[in-house]
Amino acid sequence: MNPPKTDARRRHDPGVRGFASDNYAGAHPEVLAALSLANGGHEVAYGGDAYTEHLQRIIRSHFGATAEAYPVFNGTGANVLALQAVTDRWGAVICAESAHINVDEGGAPERMGGLKLLTVPTPDGKLTPELIDRQAWGFEDEHRAMPQVVSLTQSTELGTLYAPDEIRAICEHAHAHGMRVHVDGSRIANAAASLDVPMRTFTNAVGVDILSLGGTKNGALFGEAVVVINQDAVRRMTHLRKLSMQLASKMRFVSVQLEALFAKDLWLRNARHANEMAQRLAEGVRAVDGVDILYPVQANAVFARLPHDVAERLQKRYRFYFWDEAAGHVRWVCSFDTAEDDVDGFVAALKEEMAR
Amino acid sequence: MNPPKTDARRRHDPGVRGFASDNYAGAHPEVLAALSLANGGHEVAYGGDAYTEHLQRIIRSHFGATAEAYPVFNGTGANVLALQAVTDRWGAVICAESAHINVDEGGAPERMGGLKLLTVPTPDGKLTPELIDRQAWGFEDEHRAMPQVVSLTQSTELGTLYAPDEIRAICEHAHAHGMRVHVDGSRIANAAASLDVPMRTFTNAVGVDILSLGGTKNGALFGEAVVVINQDAVRRMTHLRKLSMQLASKMRFVSVQLEALFAKDLWLRNARHANEMAQRLAEGVRAVDGVDILYPVQANAVFARLPHDVAERLQKRYRFYFWDEAAGHVRWVCSFDTAEDDVDGFVAALKEEMAR
Amino acid sequence: MNPPKTDARRRHDPGVRGFASDNYAGAHPEVLAALSLANGGHEVAYGGDAYTEHLQRIIRSHFGATAEAYPVFNGTGANVLALQAVTDRWGAVICAESAHINVDEGGAPERMGGLKLLTVPTPDGKLTPELIDRQAWGFEDEHRAMPQVVSLTQSTELGTLYAPDEIRAICEHAHAHGMRVHVDGSRIANAAASLDVPMRTFTNAVGVDILSLGGTKNGALFGEAVVVINQDAVRRMTHLRKLSMQLASKMRFVSVQLEALFAKDLWLRNARHANEMAQRLAEGVRAVDGVDILYPVQANAVFARLPHDVAERLQKRYRFYFWDEAAGHVRWVCSFDTAEDDVDGFVAALKEEMAR
Amino acid sequence: MNPPKTDARRRHDPGVRGFASDNYAGAHPEVLAALSLANGGHEVAYGGDAYTEHLQRIIRSHFGATAEAYPVFNGTGANVLALQAVTDRWGAVICAESAHINVDEGGAPERMGGLKLLTVPTPDGKLTPELIDRQAWGFEDEHRAMPQVVSLTQSTELGTLYAPDEIRAICEHAHAHGMRVHVDGSRIANAAASLDVPMRTFTNAVGVDILSLGGTKNGALFGEAVVVINQDAVRRMTHLRKLSMQLASKMRFVSVQLEALFAKDLWLRNARHANEMAQRLAEGVRAVDGVDILYPVQANAVFARLPHDVAERLQKRYRFYFWDEAAGHVRWVCSFDTAEDDVDGFVAALKEEMAR
Repeated sequence: MNPPKTDARRRHDPGVRGFASDNYAGAHPEVLAALSLANGGHEVAYGGDAYTEHLQRIIRSHFGATAEAYPVFNGTGANVLALQAVTDRWGAVICAESAHINVDEGGAPERMGGLKLLTVPTPDGKLTPELIDRQAWGFEDEHRAMPQVVSLTQSTELGTLYAPDEIRAICEHAHAHGMRVHVDGSRIANAAASLDVPMRTFTNAVGVDILSLGGTKNGALFGEAVVVINQDAVRRMTHLRKLSMQLASKMRFVSVQLEALFAKDLWLRNARHANEMAQRLAEGVRAVDGVDILYPVQANAVFARLPHDVAERLQKRYRFYFWDEAAGHVRWVCSFDTAEDDVDGFVAALKEEMAR
Repeated sequence: MNPPKTDARRRHDPGVRGFASDNYAGAHPEVLAALSLANGGHEVAYGGDAYTEHLQRIIRSHFGATAEAYPVFNGTGANVLALQAVTDRWGAVICAESAHINVDEGGAPERMGGLKLLTVPTPDGKLTPELIDRQAWGFEDEHRAMPQVVSLTQSTELGTLYAPDEIRAICEHAHAHGMRVHVDGSRIANAAASLDVPMRTFTNAVGVDILSLGGTKNGALFGEAVVVINQDAVRRMTHLRKLSMQLASKMRFVSVQLEALFAKDLWLRNARHANEMAQRLAEGVRAVDGVDILYPVQANAVFARLPHDVAERLQKRYRFYFWDEAAGHVRWVCSFDTAEDDVDGFVAALKEEMAR
Repeated sequence: MNPPKTDARRRHDPGVRGFASDNYAGAHPEVLAALSLANGGHEVAYGGDAYTEHLQRIIRSHFGATAEAYPVFNGTGANVLALQAVTDRWGAVICAESAHINVDEGGAPERMGGLKLLTVPTPDGKLTPELIDRQAWGFEDEHRAMPQVVSLTQSTELGTLYAPDEIRAICEHAHAHGMRVHVDGSRIANAAASLDVPMRTFTNAVGVDILSLGGTKNGALFGEAVVVINQDAVRRMTHLRKLSMQLASKMRFVSVQLEALFAKDLWLRNARHANEMAQRLAEGVRAVDGVDILYPVQANAVFARLPHDVAERLQKRYRFYFWDEAAGHVRWVCSFDTAEDDVDGFVAALKEEMAR
Repeated sequence: MNPPKTDARRRHDPGVRGFASDNYAGAHPEVLAALSLANGGHEVAYGGDAYTEHLQRIIRSHFGATAEAYPVFNGTGANVLALQAVTDRWGAVICAESAHINVDEGGAPERMGGLKLLTVPTPDGKLTPELIDRQAWGFEDEHRAMPQVVSLTQSTELGTLYAPDEIRAICEHAHAHGMRVHVDGSRIANAAASLDVPMRTFTNAVGVDILSLGGTKNGALFGEAVVVINQDAVRRMTHLRKLSMQLASKMRFVSVQLEALFAKDLWLRNARHANEMAQRLAEGVRAVDGVDILYPVQANAVFARLPHDVAERLQKRYRFYFWDEAAGHVRWVCSFDTAEDDVDGFVAALKEEMAR
């Protein structure tokens, strides 16, 4: 078939893949195909379309009968919207020091959401009731921003996972203090795939109130959704989404991507594959003397320590980031489109560079 | 050719079109085709990709050698980012009372940008130096939010147009007061098509400092760009975009859509067609007794007054909105995909309902 | 008696008074005396002191059994705190275009409170149900900041007054739309004095929910209070006051000033006197040909139009401000310490300058 | 002499003093006396008065020829104003985890100032260049709020002090990274008294850019000032103060208090006395077995660990706070009006309760 006509040109080599991030990957072809289905004709803007309506059924199939999805543009938007939704003007958010909302969102939670983050250092990116207690106090003290929500990331920014019971314990603890629980699920699919349980098992089944559901890193072009599980925790989500600049006019194109991912099992196939590639990578790396894996490899990322010059030489061959350059820590992320050959080639390159 | 495989389903009738809004339309097929080109392989996230780089050349071809484009998700995001970029913490924005930033963005400029809007009533959605002067005072008065930018919309929310000289006069006036000029160009293509001049003729050539360049209403799935023309007026746009939650991770998919539209003439073809359909519609409507057209039809929208019951019956046949329900004012918008038959059918329906 | 020892020096002439503003006046001697009473020893900070506790009884005597006072530093602080208290993150405030919150607070409501103001032009600074209706719509529309509170000023920025029934009508109208009513009462004492009714007659008796109670312009050194009448309308006022930077550590010194004013009738004596001086001034001005009084003189301010050169010469003899310099409008404000001689001397000077 | 007449009543025992906080103390009589001097007649509001003008000379005598003072209401207001003044919209503040701005201001820096705080744990409340480096990175990374100012507290929240050279090292380090340095000086007088140097020695002489100058804890009724030392670091302070709700209308009453304190040596006498009482207290406490002093006692506060039940019984006799209740840490603060007998009585009481 002929490529469809467009004035745009291909400007990159679609055969090149690295380990920099799962958002270096493009979109899954099935997601792209879904856009065509949703195209054509006129559909109600701002979420009144049939795709967004149908998305609610899909979301309820994953997150229970109370769940409602509010599609948004990106992860920062999803997080800031969700956290505003469950806090008052005086509210604060307890999170891990390594949380994306704390280190990678340019201060959007503070500036756009007016949110104070109460952070806790963690060994592995994971909160526990005990760690939460370091910040869960002073609720009645007007001098202290009131802790009103615990935000955890599943899978975490360090590639680790919460077991369902760990989230249950956090939810019980948070709720006992009158706090809500938010899950930053930009990689929730990887978590479900790795735990081999439905997403509900570690969200609505254990007490999570609200969730940022990731699409982009799972294979969408863009698009996430705030999923409200506990309807009592929120009001006027649509107003809040709009003023947070996250309301898509042609929302059908966000919703249909999420449909393509979550209607059946594409989300799971994508996540499983990325996780398997990370396991393959970890296995390969473990066989290389002088390279240490830093955290349990439970999702689609491998964190490792290696000599700085080796890392720099390797970066010339494959794209990836230092996580903590001073310490020589790097992050390697696998994606839905990472090939076995990519991993094997990378491990071989690592061996070569270590041997130089 | 077989439709590509996806778990998503078509859930709307692609043959139905109305006059509710240009964002009820879908994406132009050439835009959709561009997404495939940009897909595949790994590209640097957050704007470090080849498409975003190339977009700069395209933008400079339209807006001059100093222009730089910062792709964002949507129009509200573009406006709030652009206005923050040219104001201090104490800054205010002079705009028409009917401006989108004032009436249709849910308070995002105030809440997310901390911006005070100083509004002026206008007869036709257009500012003039005289109208601006109603708010352009008290610059040294700490009790007054300092006017630092004039924001105008081209084409306006009422379907009217500024002539290039009118914008020039505004720019000269604003600059003489130390203010910047922002153009909300969510429908800038319609303006250029109608004026039959390049976009630069009424932007960089006449002194505009910064611009929200619309893609969505012109045929993109989503995606706009803040175009900085006057580099002295801004700093750290990338930081500001990120904290404003408008940084796309897989930015190639925004940039390639803008490439598809603006590389050659798709933007102009789309806008011209929409404008022509609006003219055809206006012509048809003028022939109907009892229906008044409210503003000059200069872009792709027709505003009319008609009996309330007629409007309601007509809404059951074609989607459109009341603009001012109490006054019986309605808005009819044409899009890149509006067909002549759509217009003719609509006019016929209008006649029928008026005759009942 | 010897003046008490201090390293500070007198640097102004306490015999000079003008008509610029009631905050050009100093503090009433009885207010100053109250500070000494509250001084000495240690008292609980941040409002746990005996003066703040007792203030509650005084406030309830004025505003009914449900009223609660939250002392703050200044009027802007009181207004922004009160308005935040009765709005959600998506809320907007309907107010007169001439309202202090709109024109004289440097954008603090927008930037600090995240509040959108929906303004209405008025002939005399006063809202009516009809005027409110120009903005009281679109409650369910996510694109519009949701009107949640009507803010009126009593007495107004133009020296006019609402009759109690006028406020009752506004409250009924606002409540019928699910909105709250806030009164900016920085000159509420002048209103009560002029109407010759208790303050409750036009606040809690007619449905006002929350109020900024002015102390400064009535004779305090500084200090206002947010008075909550409708407790159902607010939550966590103390947290909100603190994060709004309006929590005084040595609050006893705010509260005791308000006690000095409001325990008995000092507030009323001060306001009555200022009002009487404004009437005397208006009478005198009416006798001067060529000077027009612009609004009904109902509180402590006189707005007039006079030739620009006359105004400028007069400003060299008495301090006052242009209200609208282009139009030749000036504002003359009387204070608790304005003497009859001040007024008579001013009128004589006005006559002289008009005659030149 | 007869007490001046006022409707207010004395409602507390001026003979009772405790160790809860230096803002439990009232105002120094010389400060109160200064208010009378500034009272009477009409003075220009909002800082155009003779007292505020003269204050500039006093401030320059302390902080050098470039210094300018912006009187404000309270410490939170001073800090949020100062930090906004030296940051862009994308800016962040590096501070100690124990900083007042982080733990005691109800999230005002985040919500009102839009500021992200990048905190560092410290052993003694003091930053160092090394500690700062834990957060001073990623300046060019749009995903990270840009560190633009280091905020340190002198004396610290833990009663410790920076030597001038320590602040110099921080300033050099900060400036080398393009960051400004802010000093939260709510207890700067105690620092100067303890170091026995002028305030300039550890501020303008070593590179501090901007400063919150404390009045309240030093003996004012209320009132602080933002002191700008580096004029290049700020713009439009007056606009920023107004929109931050910190502009006093009758500013003469703030400025004259600061004059009373800082014109000659009242500030120093007050601070010295408070420090001496803290030393006396520390000496007494050291002689009590089972009570540990936690930090060097360098200003006017003593932090100690003692058995929980002892602390609770002692709190029934003297007011003071737990600092960390779980750990049995308490804070005892001395004030300008703390008497030797207060200290001795307290130590005796401590001994008694320890012996029970």
